[in-house]
Amino acid sequence: MTVDVCFSPSLYSVYHNSEAVVVVVDIFRATTTIAQAFKHGVKSIRTVCSIEEAMEYKKQGWLVGAEREAERCSFADFGNSPFDYTRKKVARKNIVFTTTNGTRAITLAQAAHRVITGAFINLRAVVKYCKRSKRDILVLCSGWQNQVNIEDSLFAGALVDRLEKKGFLIESDAATMARELWLVHKNDVLHFISQSDHYHRLEEKGLMQDISFCLQLDEIDIVPELQMNESTLILKKAKKINEP
Amino acid sequence: MTVDVCFSPSLYSVYHNSEAVVVVVDIFRATTTIAQAFKHGVKSIRTVCSIEEAMEYKKQGWLVGAEREAERCSFADFGNSPFDYTRKKVARKNIVFTTTNGTRAITLAQAAHRVITGAFINLRAVVKYCKRSKRDILVLCSGWQNQVNIEDSLFAGALVDRLEKKGFLIESDAATMARELWLVHKNDVLHFISQSDHYHRLEEKGLMQDISFCLQLDEIDIVPELQMNESTLILKKAKKINEP
Repeated sequence: MTVDVCFSPSLYSVYHNSEAVVVVVDIFRATTTIAQAFKHGVKSIRTVCSIEEAMEYKKQGWLVGAEREAERCSFADFGNSPFDYTRKKVARKNIVFTTTNGTRAITLAQAAHRVITGAFINLRAVVKYCKRSKRDILVLCSGWQNQVNIEDSLFAGALVDRLEKKGFLIESDAATMARELWLVHKNDVLHFISQSDHYHRLEEKGLMQDISFCLQLDEIDIVPELQMNESTLILKKAKKINEP
Repeated sequence: MTVDVCFSPSLYSVYHNSEAVVVVVDIFRATTTIAQAFKHGVKSIRTVCSIEEAMEYKKQGWLVGAEREAERCSFADFGNSPFDYTRKKVARKNIVFTTTNGTRAITLAQAAHRVITGAFINLRAVVKYCKRSKRDILVLCSGWQNQVNIEDSLFAGALVDRLEKKGFLIESDAATMARELWLVHKNDVLHFISQSDHYHRLEEKGLMQDISFCLQLDEIDIVPELQMNESTLILKKAKKINEP
């Protein structure tokens, strides 16, 4: 088994491996928020790409999370902050979700063998899932409007590092570079990420609390996994992911 | 002025800046070899994308350098090794050149304000050129078949580091990541690059001497600069690049 890293959705066709498990990551904040919603008992998260689709669901009475450019869309029930998805609001609910970058990456990866979402907050659970899958792993970084970003790349590096220790082979230079950045900065993640573009975007909007939340490691033992239902993309909690 | 890094030709549209000077890099080996050919007195290097074009020039009597998958094409006078381009063979000659990745990246960047080629071997000269240009700088890594590679990314990081020290602002996370990899590995470049895919490709072909050559720093005080002549792309030695 190998592990590889795709730094941007624009590179996906170059790294595509239809036999692989794709781990979609959008640390700030979509895939962190998705993990948190599952922790708080959400039943399913339907991911859609456009605001129009999300508004259509809202009209039909669904609970909708919608964010663009780091802000909640005015029509939506939730934005992209993990703090929006309280147990009171989401437990046992089916919700709809669209974000600037993360949900697009999920849509892009839909044809892979399996698609899951990962973040620092559920990293250990993702590692267990990957090990159990006995498949090649491809980390797809959501980036920012197709640009490479530091936080998703660091997560990719952390996952490469842990999987390499479990016997996965590094597939390409991108995976080596990501792992290297992680190994150098794993003890000062916040400091390194404070140099990133998106950190400054969130900081300007007073979202420092979200940043700290999104950098927590191994707090949630859940892996959200994509299921296709006709042409609809739905994330559900993956079944038992303990190692055999 | 800013400095940015595009890790792969497939990301070029995302990072494109028509007002910038684009520095195309293909450390192993195209842009190192181009610098060496100019050092040995070549008059001009016409870059073409396809083997067919290169063969057509050969039929017309041109001297042709042509490489695919790290090997010299059988019809060609030279491959992609800097050792092929001796003073005896290239001084005062106009030659034609095509390689797997490097010449494609040059073609891709042709619409930028200016296009130059950079490598470790002429890094200092490239820094001087960039400073004199008083323009935004975009480093375009040629990569390997559109995948990100370590050696071009490290060069990008070295250039970002030097330009930042001369007052350029870092434009994006990719530039920060490249600089970081350079700062961590600038004293063990060969060791880090020995983990790269292309290192192994060259090693298998017995090209260790080429690898060492391509990692020399600041040996050639020449900047190859692209000129358009009708629809033909021609590299010539840039005029005086000393700092004002």
